Amino acid sequence: MTPLEKLVEFLRIPSVSADPAHTPDVRRAAEWVAAELDVLPHVELIEAPGRHPLVYAESLQAPGQPTLLLYGHYDVQPPDPLDLWNSPPFEPVIKNDNIYARGACDDKGQTLILITALQQLLARDGRLPCNIKVLIEGEEESGGEHIEAFVPAHTEKLAADAAVICDTEMFAPGLPALCVGLRGIVYGEIHVHGPAQDLHSGVYGGVAPNPMMAMAEILTALKNRDGHITIPGFYDAVRPPTPEEARAWASLPFDEEHYCQTEVGSPALTGEPGFSVFDRTWARPTFEVHGIRGGFIGEGSKTVIPAVAVAKVSFRLVPDQDPAVAVDQIKAAVAAATPKGVTAEFKLLHAAPPSSVDPSHPLIAKAAAALTESFGRETVYIRSGGSIPIVGLFRQTLGIPSILMGFGLPDDGLHSPNEKFHLPNFHKGIETVQTFLKSL
Amino acid sequence: MTPLEKLVEFLRIPSVSADPAHTPDVRRAAEWVAAELDVLPHVELIEAPGRHPLVYAESLQAPGQPTLLLYGHYDVQPPDPLDLWNSPPFEPVIKNDNIYARGACDDKGQTLILITALQQLLARDGRLPCNIKVLIEGEEESGGEHIEAFVPAHTEKLAADAAVICDTEMFAPGLPALCVGLRGIVYGEIHVHGPAQDLHSGVYGGVAPNPMMAMAEILTALKNRDGHITIPGFYDAVRPPTPEEARAWASLPFDEEHYCQTEVGSPALTGEPGFSVFDRTWARPTFEVHGIRGGFIGEGSKTVIPAVAVAKVSFRLVPDQDPAVAVDQIKAAVAAATPKGVTAEFKLLHAAPPSSVDPSHPLIAKAAAALTESFGRETVYIRSGGSIPIVGLFRQTLGIPSILMGFGLPDDGLHSPNEKFHLPNFHKGIETVQTFLKSL
Repeated sequence: MTPLEKLVEFLRIPSVSADPAHTPDVRRAAEWVAAELDVLPHVELIEAPGRHPLVYAESLQAPGQPTLLLYGHYDVQPPDPLDLWNSPPFEPVIKNDNIYARGACDDKGQTLILITALQQLLARDGRLPCNIKVLIEGEEESGGEHIEAFVPAHTEKLAADAAVICDTEMFAPGLPALCVGLRGIVYGEIHVHGPAQDLHSGVYGGVAPNPMMAMAEILTALKNRDGHITIPGFYDAVRPPTPEEARAWASLPFDEEHYCQTEVGSPALTGEPGFSVFDRTWARPTFEVHGIRGGFIGEGSKTVIPAVAVAKVSFRLVPDQDPAVAVDQIKAAVAAATPKGVTAEFKLLHAAPPSSVDPSHPLIAKAAAALTESFGRETVYIRSGGSIPIVGLFRQTLGIPSILMGFGLPDDGLHSPNEKFHLPNFHKGIETVQTFLKSL
Repeated sequence: MTPLEKLVEFLRIPSVSADPAHTPDVRRAAEWVAAELDVLPHVELIEAPGRHPLVYAESLQAPGQPTLLLYGHYDVQPPDPLDLWNSPPFEPVIKNDNIYARGACDDKGQTLILITALQQLLARDGRLPCNIKVLIEGEEESGGEHIEAFVPAHTEKLAADAAVICDTEMFAPGLPALCVGLRGIVYGEIHVHGPAQDLHSGVYGGVAPNPMMAMAEILTALKNRDGHITIPGFYDAVRPPTPEEARAWASLPFDEEHYCQTEVGSPALTGEPGFSVFDRTWARPTFEVHGIRGGFIGEGSKTVIPAVAVAKVSFRLVPDQDPAVAVDQIKAAVAAATPKGVTAEFKLLHAAPPSSVDPSHPLIAKAAAALTESFGRETVYIRSGGSIPIVGLFRQTLGIPSILMGFGLPDDGLHSPNEKFHLPNFHKGIETVQTFLKSL
């Protein structure tokens, strides 16, 4: 099978880790990855009760050479809303050099870049040029509890000089990039309770508290219309980009109007006045509402004052915000914003710290050189607005930096309908990883 | 079969008119009603394309006597949330003199009061003491389009001296009441569109507009935390209760603390300061949010900025507010409150004017006397915060008042899980309607 045929096979597995109904599929994806890694001397599935398995493999046959810990994830985001997909999310379609499927870019395509690079090096040379440990998880899109517990407990097994993570994007097509900063996250739910049960809005409207409206009041009390988070103390630890970073960002090729129209697709961009798009997405914290459960949203016109409303919300954090401090601030702000007649509470689902890597690290420089060689253009140093909690975990527990070598494109539609991966990047990625490993 | 056995049979039909999946059940309920009314000389199902049937029956064999138009509805509210029911909503359970089922009080139990009264009068006397027209609809809980079109087109067929409607409640157990005022309603959806598709909240958080947050901003711009609607001009036509009404309301037996704890079940009541509970539920307009669709509300933690959010909302109107004027005011206010980066629109689903009847009308007086006789207590004149659009329609098109003779109790849980009907009121209602008809 060609690497592309393998990618198609991998993408056909609906390994949605957030959905308990897909648990068998998630396991199937883990077993598929383990089978591919079976070319290495050692491979195992690491189990934990109620958790999706970790896939671990290693090849430690290059004494004196550095050791790299390769990381990826085999789980994917839920595909909803299904009706916006042009083709079924788990039936990959290839069109104009792109492959369309949930997980094409995030992160099955990029995980397979790492695996295929190892397979090709072994097939050609019979050995790997350095020591390799591989750790592929299945809960990146749903909290990552398993790996979060496993890594701190197995620091010797996972000891390495650096981690290599293919889960980010290039700044623009053909422009190779290394990501040296990631936002952290606090993800949770705001629960608002009002009447003891759903009430008739005619009979009780005017005196009964409405948790759905109370939710709107709480949400708007946490962020103003300028996109500025109004939680007391929330920006206290925010570190602005260095003057070098600010200069580098200002010189990146970027057309804000085009970005608004083609990537975001809304009438205008929003966010804090006085901050650039890069500031707002890479160096400023955010507060977003993902959905609100409760009441009646079906066909027709049920006139109900709901007893309960639950909002799914997240905050992105930037250096040097601390998730634990942020959670305390959020809880206090929700309590302060709770209107009369209801009770409200923030419930944490998961959190990860923001992280940054030093661009002057020697392995980062080699990775940049490998990217520059494959793409024929100077590698740029960028950040990402997303959160890869594992980067902070590797730093904290293993004391190693992560090389974020991303091959996604800005319009790949991560977490969206019609997610895609640009196939030339898939192939160049396999080449780049091999160049990098051989350069050590 | 006893009247109670018939009620059980009627309640077993899940005639949820708002849910297209229940269309066959709604028809079954219509046919059940028609079969029960077959004791009258004429009965028919009135059909219209895509609409639930009206059941019409008449007995015009009392020349020189007044003609009454009896109204009820055989459709019910959706039963969700199902998990809060102590027994299945369409499997009636009798406990402590109450019957529990969706529609027990609203309005199958009360509709059956009217039908059973006619059946018993006919069985005993062989004739009815006055002329009777019966019109039972199946869309009261979902907009009532069929009857709204039918009544104005058949004013001669429906000509009567007054309508009798059993779809309201007594003020308190044992205290008979006639409802002389109803709020109107404007029900619709606020649609907010932002990004062209769902976006990754990490990558785009900080610059992409979030329709879910924009919805919270729009909702809180329409009503303040005091429950005061901030739509310009919204209160212009609001008529305060007359001094007589205000005095009568002040003397009603009412314990606000008990009402808050047992009926509403929330930590506190809410609403406009300076207005009593009766003012706020009977004589002041409201704005309520019933639910918000869009984004991700499932298990787990999808980090999405949704492309679209849709809120189901309603406004209750009081005399002399005009629904058409209110809709214009709402549309303008939504447009004015729409934040940067999104588009928003109010879409009307249905509307009905507020209504009031003159308590000094002779038929109202006779109805009050019949109630007083059955319950052994003086009948009180109250209003209802709910909307019975048919009352305004009968007034506008047939020029007749409606006698709102209600047998529900305040804790019957209309539109809520575990809706019930107090069986002694069912039996006393049947008796009262007979007394009233014989008194004409």
